[in-house]
Parts: sequence; C-alpha cells; structure tokens
Amino acid sequence: MKPFLDGLSQCLGPAGLVTDPAEMAPHLTDWRRMFSGPALAVLRPGSTDQVSAAVRLCAQHGVAIVPQGGNTGLAGGATPMGTGPQVVLSLARMTAIGTPDPIGMVVEVQAGAILQRVKEVAAGCGRQLPISLAAEGSATIGGVISTNAGGLNVLRYGMARDFALGLEVVLPDGTVANGLKPLRKDNAGFDWKHLFIGSEGAFGIVTAAVLRLTPATRHRSVALLSVQDLPAAIRLLGLFQDRIGETLSAFELISAEAMRLVETRCGLACPVADGAWFLLVEVASSLDGLAGAMEATLEAAFGAGLVQDGTLAASEQQAQSLWALREHVTEAESRCGKSLKHDVSLPLRRMEAFLDSVRARLAELAPAARLNIFGHLGDGNLHVNVILGETPPAGASGITAMVHDLIAEAGGSISAEHGLGQYRLDEWCRLTPRTGRDLAIGIKRAIDPNCLMNPGKAIPVFSPPK
Amino acid sequence: MKPFLDGLSQCLGPAGLVTDPAEMAPHLTDWRRMFSGPALAVLRPGSTDQVSAAVRLCAQHGVAIVPQGGNTGLAGGATPMGTGPQVVLSLARMTAIGTPDPIGMVVEVQAGAILQRVKEVAAGCGRQLPISLAAEGSATIGGVISTNAGGLNVLRYGMARDFALGLEVVLPDGTVANGLKPLRKDNAGFDWKHLFIGSEGAFGIVTAAVLRLTPATRHRSVALLSVQDLPAAIRLLGLFQDRIGETLSAFELISAEAMRLVETRCGLACPVADGAWFLLVEVASSLDGLAGAMEATLEAAFGAGLVQDGTLAASEQQAQSLWALREHVTEAESRCGKSLKHDVSLPLRRMEAFLDSVRARLAELAPAARLNIFGHLGDGNLHVNVILGETPPAGASGITAMVHDLIAEAGGSISAEHGLGQYRLDEWCRLTPRTGRDLAIGIKRAIDPNCLMNPGKAIPVFSPPK
Repeated sequence: MKPFLDGLSQCLGPAGLVTDPAEMAPHLTDWRRMFSGPALAVLRPGSTDQVSAAVRLCAQHGVAIVPQGGNTGLAGGATPMGTGPQVVLSLARMTAIGTPDPIGMVVEVQAGAILQRVKEVAAGCGRQLPISLAAEGSATIGGVISTNAGGLNVLRYGMARDFALGLEVVLPDGTVANGLKPLRKDNAGFDWKHLFIGSEGAFGIVTAAVLRLTPATRHRSVALLSVQDLPAAIRLLGLFQDRIGETLSAFELISAEAMRLVETRCGLACPVADGAWFLLVEVASSLDGLAGAMEATLEAAFGAGLVQDGTLAASEQQAQSLWALREHVTEAESRCGKSLKHDVSLPLRRMEAFLDSVRARLAELAPAARLNIFGHLGDGNLHVNVILGETPPAGASGITAMVHDLIAEAGGSISAEHGLGQYRLDEWCRLTPRTGRDLAIGIKRAIDPNCLMNPGKAIPVFSPPK
Repeated sequence: MKPFLDGLSQCLGPAGLVTDPAEMAPHLTDWRRMFSGPALAVLRPGSTDQVSAAVRLCAQHGVAIVPQGGNTGLAGGATPMGTGPQVVLSLARMTAIGTPDPIGMVVEVQAGAILQRVKEVAAGCGRQLPISLAAEGSATIGGVISTNAGGLNVLRYGMARDFALGLEVVLPDGTVANGLKPLRKDNAGFDWKHLFIGSEGAFGIVTAAVLRLTPATRHRSVALLSVQDLPAAIRLLGLFQDRIGETLSAFELISAEAMRLVETRCGLACPVADGAWFLLVEVASSLDGLAGAMEATLEAAFGAGLVQDGTLAASEQQAQSLWALREHVTEAESRCGKSLKHDVSLPLRRMEAFLDSVRARLAELAPAARLNIFGHLGDGNLHVNVILGETPPAGASGITAMVHDLIAEAGGSISAEHGLGQYRLDEWCRLTPRTGRDLAIGIKRAIDPNCLMNPGKAIPVFSPPK
C-alpha cells in the first residue's frame, strides 16, 4: 500500500491525507457509536480536482471509498465496514459558499458546506433554504443531498432532492460530471443528477451543488395542541389543509409518553394539558393575515371538538419554547439508555391500526421495552423508537423485524428520511420486491463495475462480479 | 410478422390492436405535423398486465415500442421514426382515476388519465394538482411524467417530477416494477422512479402513478403590467419575491410583438399601454390578506418606477380575460405560418445579453424572420420562437443552431420543459459534454440492452450494440 499512500500524499498534500490513528478515529465511527470500521487513510481533498485525482488513484489500486460529510447520519452510511481495503474521503475542507442570486433564487456551494451556514447565507439575502434538521449545525450539503435528507418542513417544501438544481459529481473512475447549472427548468434528456441523490455515495461523490432557494416567509405562528387520539390528530391535519394548507410548514406529532420524557429527563415544562398525543403546528406566510387565519383555524378545531387543550405562541420567544419541547425528544430518549430507532412512513389511514399492532406485538415480544413515538405527521413519517434501557430486555432482538413487517403490511417504507446505510440494508433486502432490488443492483453494476463507491451501503453490492 | 401480430391480437383482444391504416394514422404523426413514421400496429392495452404481455411479445420479436399518451408533445417524442420495426403503444384506454385521499393529499391514476380530468378530481375534494399546460385537456399523466412537463406554475410548485410520489413501470423485458406507494417520504435506497421521469420512455413505460396533491388556494389575484425593458421585469420579479414571494404562482413574460400578434391575429384587446414587455402576474393564497398585499406590492412597484402601466383584475372574469391574452400567444403565432420553436432556460442575469445577441444574429442571418418571445420568466424559461411565415426566408436553416449556441454560451438549457424527443436530440448531442452523454447512454444500455424502448428519443441510442 506504500505506493498508494505515496500517490495520495502527492496529490492531496499534507493537509489532505490523514494516517495518524488518533486523527483518523473520529472518521471511523458514526456519532451514535453504533458502527465502526477500519480505513487505510482519511482523505481530505481541498478541491474537486483533488477528489478526482484521489478517486483515480483508488481505482488504480482497487481501494474502495467511503465518502463522508458531517458524519451525522443515523444509518452508518458514512462509516467503513471492513469489507476489503477502504479509505474515508471527507469533504470537510470543501466548504465554499458562493454569492447567492436572490432573484434567480439559487446559490452554489461545495459539498462540505454546513447546512446551517448555507441557511444563514440564504437568509442574509432575504431568501431561505427550508431544510431543517436536528443536525443542521454539523450536516454538510453533500451529505444532505446524497441521503436526500428530510426534516421538519418536508410537508411544505419537500426533501433535499427538491432543492438540488444542479450537481457536480466525481464518478468511480475519477471523471468529473459537471452539472452545476443554476436552472429551475432543464428537461434536456435523462437527468442524471437524480442517480446521486439519496443513493448514499453508491454511484459517485457529490462535490458541489446549485441549490434552489425559496422566498422568505416573514411571519410565523406556532401552536401546541393536545388531542384525544390519532384519528383526531389526522382530522386536525385535514382541517388545517382545508383552511390554510399552503401556509402549513410543520405538523409534528409527539406522544404523551415522549412529552413526559422531555419533562422528566430534560426539565422542560409542557404548558398544555395531556391528551394521548401532542401536535406542534407551525404556519408561515409573508401575508399579514396569517395570525388571524391561524386563530380562526384553531377556533374551528376547538369548535369541532378535535382539540383537548392548546396554546398559541404569543411571541417569537414562546414559539421557540414550544419548539424546544419537540426538539428535545431525541435528547430525552438518549438519556434513557439504549434505544432502537425506526424511521417509517405509511399512509395516514393505516397509521392507527399499525400503531395498535406495534403496541400489542411489543407487549408480547419485550414487555419491558417502552415505545417513544414522535415524528412528522404531515408527511406520514413516524419515528417509532423503542427504549431498551441500559440492558436490552429479553426479546429486544426481534423488535426491529416486527416493526418493519408491520410497515410492509401497511404499504409503508422502512426508511422515510434517514436512508438505508449499512443499518437497514439487510431489512430492505428482506422486504423489497426483487424488481426494485434488481434495478438498483443493475445501475450499480453499470456505473461502478468495480464496486469502489461506498460498498455495502444503500445497495446490496459488496464486491465486483466474480 | 404474422405470428407477432397474432400474438398481440391474442393478448390484447380486438379493442387493443389497431392495424387499419386510417385508424393508425393519427398515432403516426405528431399534432404539429412535423414528424411521422411507420408502425406495424398501434397497441391499445387495457391494463398493466396487457402492457406487460405486449412488451414481452415485442421483446421476443425484436420489435421496438414507441409509448404514446395524448400525443401533444412538441418534440416528436411519441412518434415512430422508421428505424427498424416499431409499434406505437397508446395508453389511451388506461384512464382510471382512483379516489383521492384529501388528508394524505394523494391520488392514484393510470397513465392514460387526462391531466385536466385529474385536476378536476383533485379540485372536487378541495385539493389541487397544480400542473398547468396549454395541452392539459388532452395530455395524459403518463406523458406528463415521462416528459417531466412544466407549464405555468413551476416557479411555485415545480415540474411534473415533483408530483410523482410513486410509479408503476413496465420494463423493457415486460417485468412490472410496482412502486405505487402513496408516501410523501420514502428514502429506502436508490429511488428508481426518477429513471423514468423525463426520460421519454427510453427506459420503460409508465403505466400508473401516485400523484401528490397540494392544498387549494382559495383566492387569486391577477395583474397585467407593462415594463420598459427586461432589467425592469427582472427587478419586478425580485420585488414580488421579496414581499409576497411564496404566493407567486405565475410570472409570465410576453413581448410587445407577441402581444401585438394576439391583438391582430386573434382579435383580443390588451387593456394595458405598451412597454417593451408585458408581465402577467398571478398570486394565490388561502389567506384573506392576499388582495391587499397584491395592491401594496403593485403600489411599491409603481413607486419604484418599475412599471409603465398595468391593470389589476377586479373579478374572476377579468382575471380570465388577462390570462386569455397570454394563452393566445401560441395560437396567434400559428396563424402567421411556419415557425421555429426554441424552449430555452438560462440564468436571469444572462437573459438580456442573450436576447440582444439573438436579435443581432437573427438580423444578419435571416432579416425577414420575426421573433416571437414569451415564456415563464419566474423560471428563467423563454420560448424564443421565430416566425418564418408561409415560405421560410433565406438563412432560416441556421437559426436554431444560432439560438442554441448562444444558450450554451449563457450556461442555459436548450430544452427547459418540452424535452428532447427526436427534435432536439442532435442539438443536445452537439452541445452536451461527453460525460453527460456517456452517463445517459450507459444507463440506457444497462436497462434496455436490446434498445426496444423508444429508440432515438431523449438518448442517442438507436440500436443494440454491434
């Protein structure tokens, strides 16, 4: 491997090649510490040309590449797996953010740019990049795009895919595919950029992107409501859609149990009397009529008997306090010890029966485990997490398959927004019809015949065909 | 070919197989009568199973397939080309529209469903499918998706791709890939549906789709404005985006020459005094404050000296009259004889210089030709059409290459929304860097190795590898 490392050193320079074990360590484990694996080196290229040169060297030496952004993924997609010689290629040094075009509503950024920083730049010119994630202070644009990240505002604005107007990608042989056009409409044949969105680096490395921005919404109104049961929550969603649907920016679900954990584990106080579920609702608009419309909609909801209790934030500070309750659910969960995270989506009309089945099956399988359910109801996306505590109880090993089986029966997805990575790949193979698997594998073989791009992530291909 | 036709007859039944030349004729020519080609038969399957069986038969006999929806395309993408034995496969009988789910905001439809009909069904449950095209009374959902159609509302809602949550596709070997999940979030690995959106049938036949709906906007406000020059038009767009950007549903550009043609050729009267350009602006919202916000924004625009003259529709009827001016531009053009249509997009900041160059080069090349420019300024999408009259003037043959060369220089696209089809494929090959072409060709070879799916459209592959 010496000629390989010497070659890397030559093309990346001293700042671009890390072989010291202590310096490499943070790149070899995911942030939840669920996955780790060895690498020959961590590459930190400073430019697309350096990425290209490094990939070419890896291809020559048959070394696989694990691309890595902010290392905030929840599915081990950016962690090496020890299947053959691998390097981690971090985009962390490629952080440039271009000058946004506020009327064209676009901005070009390098893959290592931090999501939060790009959002600040957009806000600085009166526009917004409405991709909102817990990890946005560390997550990079390259990671956001290659995992098609979701988050809090998907019901209104869509996933990361909907913001990627153009991509620059380094292909498995080192070729640079430059599609960095700032065009909102470009129907010139097969749009190859979609190969690289959500495929977790299995086809190439995203090195830069042109992002679509949206107009800013100057006003927002935030309410926390409690409801008696899930059907009421879903009817409430319908009522908001009927009346002021296009202003609905978040419609978040929090179970009473999850809210209790936030209060007890994080010391926050919920100002709303209990129902079975809480809903955090945000509407936003640039029109002055927003506050009045929100009040009228809430009145209608109370009038229809859909809401048990609720509060409407009277200030930006109160709005932030209400959001803090939602944002602390994950933190509260992590303070309870180990947990199993399930990131599922399903049709709303199947949701109640699905959750009833999960509860019943969990009580049989692992009665000591506790459900911690929250998520993005407006997208049909639930995080059906299961708290195991410090020592996993009996039956814990069967929980994930049980949840996923029920999701498959309900016509849902076992990965709504977190991706497959290495975490969910086996489950995906188990539950996905052969046609879908064959399509993914066929494209992988065509684009990356030597299987050098993040092998074993997102697509069940670990090595070249024999 | 007798065994082939007998086999088709058996699997499709008498209603599903057309071999009578008179009955076939409308399927063998595009509606602008620019393209036509022969076919062995026109297939009219009544179900996905019949599509699958027919494709299997075609694969066995080495017969290529040209999928066809409403035959309203502008690039010859659904017309056979005479390169080897071909059949047209029309989805016209597969028109089922499922019951929409108004809270989940989805509806499942077959590929032959007419866009306008689906829009009506969505409206019937208080939702909308905001894909608005001149051809929506004939265009089918399958065609809309496989060409990634655009239209009038893209700046707010996106292209057809943004509405396709799930697809059912028949692959080149007849396999049915069923991805008809009504999920707004589904990040389970490589999302193969994007292969089939905008690729004009080159990889398979879209047979059904689950479409995303949006909340309805109960109020709209429409204005027609005239401006002195293009920079003023672009600054006006910025002003709208700054103030009430998220309500902006259409920002259409019409040149003074185009407006004159609408008046003289179609007998409509423009109520606004001339500038160099007209803008048709529509804002929409469910909030009552919309009308006031529109008035305030127009006042600000006049106050800033951006607008020369303008009128704000005071009724729905007036709004429709203003829209009629925009909608008659194409009709007015067609009454002037032959024309060359160019469907380009480019960064707004390059637009004025681009149009200046087009004007100067056209005056040299074909001084008798007249420009007819209109389009979707909010998307950077212009239709730079050139009216040739009944007899094309000297120099006409060089016009398209000239326009496209200037678009390439400006970093734009030669096909913003109409697709490549057979019309623009040579120009795309001439102007697209090799990496992009190789990616498209590589995927085509991987998915359709025998080149049976709409050969010669969208991707420059006409036959299997030798």
